Amino acid sequence: MKYKISEIADFLNREFKGEDGVIIGCNTLSDAREDEISFLANPKYVKYLATSRAGVVILEPKYAKEVDKCIISPNPYLDFARVVGLFAKAQGEFTGISDLSFIHPDAHLDKGVVVYPYVFIGPRAQIKKGTKLFPGVYIGEDCFIGEDCVLYPNVVVMGQCIIGNRVILHPGVVIGADGFGFAATQGGREKFPQIGNVVIEDEVEIGANTTIDRAALGETRVGKGTKIDNQVQVGHNVKIGSNCVIVAQVGIAGSTRIGNNVILAGQVGIAGHVNVADGCMIGAKSGINKDVKKTGIYSGAPIMEHNKFLRTCAVLPKLPDMHRELKRLRQEIDKLKEQFKDIQDK
Amino acid sequence: MKYKISEIADFLNREFKGEDGVIIGCNTLSDAREDEISFLANPKYVKYLATSRAGVVILEPKYAKEVDKCIISPNPYLDFARVVGLFAKAQGEFTGISDLSFIHPDAHLDKGVVVYPYVFIGPRAQIKKGTKLFPGVYIGEDCFIGEDCVLYPNVVVMGQCIIGNRVILHPGVVIGADGFGFAATQGGREKFPQIGNVVIEDEVEIGANTTIDRAALGETRVGKGTKIDNQVQVGHNVKIGSNCVIVAQVGIAGSTRIGNNVILAGQVGIAGHVNVADGCMIGAKSGINKDVKKTGIYSGAPIMEHNKFLRTCAVLPKLPDMHRELKRLRQEIDKLKEQFKDIQDK
Amino acid sequence: MKYKISEIADFLNREFKGEDGVIIGCNTLSDAREDEISFLANPKYVKYLATSRAGVVILEPKYAKEVDKCIISPNPYLDFARVVGLFAKAQGEFTGISDLSFIHPDAHLDKGVVVYPYVFIGPRAQIKKGTKLFPGVYIGEDCFIGEDCVLYPNVVVMGQCIIGNRVILHPGVVIGADGFGFAATQGGREKFPQIGNVVIEDEVEIGANTTIDRAALGETRVGKGTKIDNQVQVGHNVKIGSNCVIVAQVGIAGSTRIGNNVILAGQVGIAGHVNVADGCMIGAKSGINKDVKKTGIYSGAPIMEHNKFLRTCAVLPKLPDMHRELKRLRQEIDKLKEQFKDIQDK
Repeated sequence: MKYKISEIADFLNREFKGEDGVIIGCNTLSDAREDEISFLANPKYVKYLATSRAGVVILEPKYAKEVDKCIISPNPYLDFARVVGLFAKAQGEFTGISDLSFIHPDAHLDKGVVVYPYVFIGPRAQIKKGTKLFPGVYIGEDCFIGEDCVLYPNVVVMGQCIIGNRVILHPGVVIGADGFGFAATQGGREKFPQIGNVVIEDEVEIGANTTIDRAALGETRVGKGTKIDNQVQVGHNVKIGSNCVIVAQVGIAGSTRIGNNVILAGQVGIAGHVNVADGCMIGAKSGINKDVKKTGIYSGAPIMEHNKFLRTCAVLPKLPDMHRELKRLRQEIDKLKEQFKDIQDK
Repeated sequence: MKYKISEIADFLNREFKGEDGVIIGCNTLSDAREDEISFLANPKYVKYLATSRAGVVILEPKYAKEVDKCIISPNPYLDFARVVGLFAKAQGEFTGISDLSFIHPDAHLDKGVVVYPYVFIGPRAQIKKGTKLFPGVYIGEDCFIGEDCVLYPNVVVMGQCIIGNRVILHPGVVIGADGFGFAATQGGREKFPQIGNVVIEDEVEIGANTTIDRAALGETRVGKGTKIDNQVQVGHNVKIGSNCVIVAQVGIAGSTRIGNNVILAGQVGIAGHVNVADGCMIGAKSGINKDVKKTGIYSGAPIMEHNKFLRTCAVLPKLPDMHRELKRLRQEIDKLKEQFKDIQDK
Repeated sequence: MKYKISEIADFLNREFKGEDGVIIGCNTLSDAREDEISFLANPKYVKYLATSRAGVVILEPKYAKEVDKCIISPNPYLDFARVVGLFAKAQGEFTGISDLSFIHPDAHLDKGVVVYPYVFIGPRAQIKKGTKLFPGVYIGEDCFIGEDCVLYPNVVVMGQCIIGNRVILHPGVVIGADGFGFAATQGGREKFPQIGNVVIEDEVEIGANTTIDRAALGETRVGKGTKIDNQVQVGHNVKIGSNCVIVAQVGIAGSTRIGNNVILAGQVGIAGHVNVADGCMIGAKSGINKDVKKTGIYSGAPIMEHNKFLRTCAVLPKLPDMHRELKRLRQEIDKLKEQFKDIQDK
């Protein structure tokens, strides 16, 4: 693939400054060659403008004078992402429906669905147009998979689950395995059968080996446009709002509700049956064990306001010194009190 | 499926109060319709009794007067779980042995084993009656899989491992991958071949994408009735007792021994070569780096008694204030000492 | 398999003391039988020498007098690992190329590659000699897989990724899924297409269900001889040096650089865009949020020097007492100051 710079500027509907040329790829400022396009989004990389060999740079108006050839944009990162999309090639080249797949006669596939070898599609499942199922995908009975989805290799969607449109499930994702529910008996524990399902709304993307459990009763739900990274665990009956960002290795226990536009950084853990308010940002490795009612930035395990967390972390390594100082103060005060008593007694 | 309330009461062997009726499903107090059964286990939901539309509610004797129709039970949650079991339908409808599967001629399958397409069963593996192997399951050579097990899609059981009866392995579980063992050399590290196996006892349930490594020598073992959630990591030569509950994303390093009836909450980490006493409960995100000899409730990383942990967490955000106060006290005491010295010198 | 003790000593090129005999297996000092070989590496197990039934023990010269039969070695653990290798049998007995696999006509496989059933190999992929692909493996288009690799069941290598020689990928490993990159828009988030790849160098071993994301641009790289445990997450554009050890459930966010010979213990989390110096050792559950410039041992979240961390942890449970003591000191000092003022006023 190759494009003229002017064609790229037209595609973005942005102004282009400099001489036209041919672009055959995308790269960072420091690695780009003369026939590659780059971008400047983070001010700390301004210094690379002078030495970058990039054929053209997408940047904000204020940096336009620093380079010979640029495409001027109010949002260089977003525009660059779109240009990368021009050059990107989707994974996988298989087309049609492999006769090495197993499609139950009662399943219904729209025309144009791609089914690789070794895919299993159970009875009464529906797969809508434009969706691709890579090798090793399992679609259980009565599932609904919307339009233009991509289910990468070895994705599992257990029976009765519902996947919206334009959803991306990366390799090894498991949707709709049983939630973790047991009733105590005298001898041990008895399984609480998990008869609910999972609903994934439109434009959700879910990272490799992430697991989202089916509800005990009712549904587990991930809201529209939410992006989930790799190895995230979502327990049964959890509700996640729309446009959230959930980074790798987060765990969310059962029946918890996450609002809209919430950002959970890596390795956060959230207890069951709590609510997290819209728009909250939770720092990496934090632990949440009760409702977060007020939108804000929080960190720590258990969480506190992020600024307080930073100050606490700054003091924490001084704790042994504080402990010693406290003992010294105690001794000195006890001595002072004694001396003082002596004076008073005189 | 549908049942009369009286039939359900008979099934549970419990007393039924009120007029009989037909029940076609199970739900929570707040979501149940007139033809659904519900339950009250948590006292904080008593308020929903008045407004619930549920056709009948399973509850403790003391709440019986609050509703028109109820089934009276000393353990409403357990009894409700059993009723849900009446209505639950097992995942998957495939029967027989698919000719799209690969079964080594030296493998031995009992009659009535279900083998979906794309299952691989290695030489000398034994699979006992009533067990179901979903698509993408791999059973290595010399494995033994007991009766009435369910191995969901893409479960991997590496060679020589032993799975008991009525074991449930959720999608993506890996049993018997090599433990993480290397011997240092001058140039780097050399693999310590992992020649042990994994033994999973009866009635164990293991969540999606959990991994349980084979022993270096000897065995890794999970005891009878233990329930393990999703994305848990169990290292080589670990021994887990019976009736434990291990919540999602816990990691247990090599050669550690977990007693019976231990509960590990989410994201707990346990170092290698330590022992955790029977009946311990370990709070979420805790870290254990030495033996826990006394049964109790512990939290923190490293752990302390849970009550002490709660008090410590309550004080932690005050640490910056404490640090400042300590400096002020130091100044004031130094000043007092000086003033005192002046007096004594007079 | 069986060997004479003298044959084993010759294989190791070590001195053998005692009477020759036949060895048929390897075991720990406490579990070994008369026909098994064992080893002593950890001094705390010296006490088992007297009672061990092992047919021969590999140990350091200073312990040679404690037993009748021993192989004397400066590095008993490494030598024992090598002996275990004599007795170890590789997983899987399949040979040849299964006609239940899918190999694209434009893929190139060297002679001697083993392809189990249900393997998918995309166009233009190259697989070099001696490599084994277990069931459910997916190799995307344009991938390169070097010599003598083992890809265990359900391993996924997405298109364009490069795997070196003698690499071991345990079940469920995902190499080259999309990195987690999105550009904010007014309405939500737009995907930044991930057009880079992953490069895994020679002698790397990667544990079950670990995920290593493809780069946004350029490459994600794991250096030669690095060993990665189960359920580790490596973000896009991360560079990991050679001979590192990365224990289970570690998460490394995008664009971070890990030096050579770094050890990350279990459940460590590292933020994006930071550097960790060669030779660092990072304690379990630690969190790193900025550059670690100096080689050393660190722990905590955020990290501090390990010794300081240990002292801090020792004091932490005393924090509630410190808080109370601080209040008492404040009262006593205020009282002293008042009394002092009274005296001065006299």
